[in-house]
Amino acid sequence: MRIVLGLQYEGSQFSGWQTQALPIRSVQAELEKAIESFIGSEGVANNPVRTITAGRTDTGVHALGQVVHFDTSTERTDWSWVRGINAFLPPDIVINWAKPVSEEFSARFSAFERTYIYAVHASSCRAPLLSNRAGFFMLPPDTWFDIPAMKKAAECLIGEHDFSSFRSAECQSKTPIKTMYSIDIVSEQPWLYFRIRGNAFLHHMVRNLIGCFLMIGVGKQGPEWMQEVLVAKNRSLAAPTFAPDGLYLAKIAYPEKFEIPDPWLQNSFLPSQLLQN
Amino acid sequence: MRIVLGLQYEGSQFSGWQTQALPIRSVQAELEKAIESFIGSEGVANNPVRTITAGRTDTGVHALGQVVHFDTSTERTDWSWVRGINAFLPPDIVINWAKPVSEEFSARFSAFERTYIYAVHASSCRAPLLSNRAGFFMLPPDTWFDIPAMKKAAECLIGEHDFSSFRSAECQSKTPIKTMYSIDIVSEQPWLYFRIRGNAFLHHMVRNLIGCFLMIGVGKQGPEWMQEVLVAKNRSLAAPTFAPDGLYLAKIAYPEKFEIPDPWLQNSFLPSQLLQN
Repeated sequence: MRIVLGLQYEGSQFSGWQTQALPIRSVQAELEKAIESFIGSEGVANNPVRTITAGRTDTGVHALGQVVHFDTSTERTDWSWVRGINAFLPPDIVINWAKPVSEEFSARFSAFERTYIYAVHASSCRAPLLSNRAGFFMLPPDTWFDIPAMKKAAECLIGEHDFSSFRSAECQSKTPIKTMYSIDIVSEQPWLYFRIRGNAFLHHMVRNLIGCFLMIGVGKQGPEWMQEVLVAKNRSLAAPTFAPDGLYLAKIAYPEKFEIPDPWLQNSFLPSQLLQN
Repeated sequence: MRIVLGLQYEGSQFSGWQTQALPIRSVQAELEKAIESFIGSEGVANNPVRTITAGRTDTGVHALGQVVHFDTSTERTDWSWVRGINAFLPPDIVINWAKPVSEEFSARFSAFERTYIYAVHASSCRAPLLSNRAGFFMLPPDTWFDIPAMKKAAECLIGEHDFSSFRSAECQSKTPIKTMYSIDIVSEQPWLYFRIRGNAFLHHMVRNLIGCFLMIGVGKQGPEWMQEVLVAKNRSLAAPTFAPDGLYLAKIAYPEKFEIPDPWLQNSFLPSQLLQN
C-alpha cells in the first residue's frame, strides 16, 4: 500500500532533506526512523521504509507543505499514521496529514508545480526573534527597496528559460530549462516576501534569484540586469546566493485525481495574503 | 554618565534576565560582558558595568522592548554604543538603540506601565516553525475559542486588585496589589493574541492569567470563573501556568520628559494591529 504524508519542518538544524553520511541530521533519516519505529520491527523486517519526496530541500531550508510517499504492508487509519509517526518525530518535524494513495502516484514525479516563499526581514538591526525564520538584509534607517524595479525585473523570468545563471555547481538536475509560472513580490515593511511558482527548480535557484532581486531592490543594478544575467547562462554574473534562513517550500501541486490535501500554511507566521491561491 | 539601552532577545536559550549561578545563561550576564568588552579593560577597571532593567523576564520569555540602564565614565556616540555592544552580543540578543539620560532616570523605578503580548498558536498539530515563538495549545480540528467569553472574563481584572491567585510561590514583589490598565484579545485563527498592560506584574502572573483565559476559551469554565479565582486570592484555584514560549515583554512606558525611544516591535512576526498604541 502507498501512503502519502504532508509534513512541515524547521530546517535550521538539518543538513537538508536527503540522508547523507552521519553524524549530519537529515529530515529523510529522521522521518524514516520515526515511521519504522511506529510500524514496529515486524513490519520493517518485511518492508524497510524508503520515502520519496517532492522537493529535496537544502541545508537550513524550511518546509510548510512538503509531500512524501512510501510503500508499506502495514495498515493504519489516516489519523493513526499522523499521531503515531508524530510521536516518534523530533520537535522540528511534524506530520500534518496522511492518506492512502494509488500506486500510480509519486510524490516526486506526479508533481507539476512547486511554490516557494522567501521571507526577507530588512532593517538596520538584526532581529533575534526572527533568526532562522527569515533572511536578514541590513538596510540603512529610513530606507526601503525599490519595489517597482524588482517587479519589473521579475517579468523576464516568467515562462520557459535556461536558468543556468542561477544554478549551483552541485546541481544534479538533468536540464537547466525550467518553467516559471509566477513571481509575486509583497512589501510589508520591514518584511519583503517573494512567492515563486515553477514546474521545478535548480539547486540554489530561488536563493540565487533572491540575491539578484535584492541587488536591484537597493539600486546596485537596474531592473534590466536580471534579463542580462538570465540570457548569459553564466553563474558568475549573478549575485551571491542569499541565506537559506527565509526559504520555505510552501506547496507542491498534483493532478486533482489524487486528491492531495492542501498544505497547512497557516501554521506559520507568514501573512494570510501569501497563503491564498 | 547614565546610558539607557533598548534591547530585544529570544529567551528560549536563557534562564531569564537575572544573573544566577553558572553555567546557566542569563541575558544580564551576556549583556554586561558585551558592554565591558566594548568599553575595554581600562574603563571597566574604573567602573564595572552593572545593568538595571525594567522587567526581569523569566526563563524562556522573550523581549521586544526591554529597557536597561547603566552608569559609565566611557564616552561614545549613541550609534557607537549600539554597533559596538552588538558586535560582542550573541545572536539571541540585540541592542536597537542607546542614548544618554539624566541620572534621575531609572529603567526600573521610572517605569509606570508595562505591556506584555502573549501569542498562542492553537491547532490540532504542533508547528515546528513556531516552536519557541508561540505557546502551543492543542485544539480539535474545526474548533476555536469562545472569544466573547474570554473578553467578558477580562473585564473583572481591569483596575487595582490583589492578584495573589495568579502569583507564583517564588514571587519577590513587595505587594500582590497591582493595577491592570487593559487586556486586548485578538483572534486570528490559528492565532490568539493577548496584549496586557499594567503598572507592574507578579512572577508568572501573565502566564497564569493566560492559562485561565484558555480554560474559559474552551468552555471548561464560564467567564464568571475569572472573578471567582481573583477574589479567592488563592493560587491553587487558578489554571496551571501556561508555557513561556509565547510571552513577549513588549513595551515599558516612562514619563515623556526622559524621551525614551519606542521599542522596535516591528522586528518580530507579530501582526501590525498589535504593535500600535
